[in-house]
Amino acid sequence: MPKAKSESKPKTKSERDESVVFVGSKPLMSYITACVTQLNRNPDELIIKARGRAISRAVDVAEVLRNRFMTDLKVRSIEISTETVTTAEGNTANVSAMEITLVKTK
Amino acid sequence: MPKAKSESKPKTKSERDESVVFVGSKPLMSYITACVTQLNRNPDELIIKARGRAISRAVDVAEVLRNRFMTDLKVRSIEISTETVTTAEGNTANVSAMEITLVKTK
Repeated sequence: MPKAKSESKPKTKSERDESVVFVGSKPLMSYITACVTQLNRNPDELIIKARGRAISRAVDVAEVLRNRFMTDLKVRSIEISTETVTTAEGNTANVSAMEITLVKTK
Repeated sequence: MPKAKSESKPKTKSERDESVVFVGSKPLMSYITACVTQLNRNPDELIIKARGRAISRAVDVAEVLRNRFMTDLKVRSIEISTETVTTAEGNTANVSAMEITLVKTK
């Protein structure tokens, strides 16, 4: 099946209304700058997502952002879940995931 | 100052009403068994706490417990915060902390 071209792909709710930053294994400040950029583009809501080991870094991102860079942010909700991923060998593994939703206080 | 004897120490709110499991660097199953024990003793509420790198393990504990061992549990709230710790050299450092509160659904 050919890949859908980006212009023909209908935008999901996530792309329209929400800014999402995925936290991985890069240094903390990479994600802080990504969050600040997203919040300048869409100041209503920011969702920080992470899986597995990166979850603790995602909490660091939210806390550093809130305490040092944008003190008018507050945590609206935090959700945890389990996702099933397929490894390179074709096995499936369960991995924990987290979503932190930050909003600006007026 | 001598250590207060356990019977003379007034119970804090935490000891009376809440079960708390602190997650550190031990294997996941140690914390799962600790959680199951606490929930058998006090089935109303369980708080899982962790700091720094252990945060992702705390999420694993909550998810494995909920999905495999006690499927009648649900997440009531998740809070994140920043704590200031003093290092062995006398410096202070900020560390992220998380508290996951689980409750039984009736």
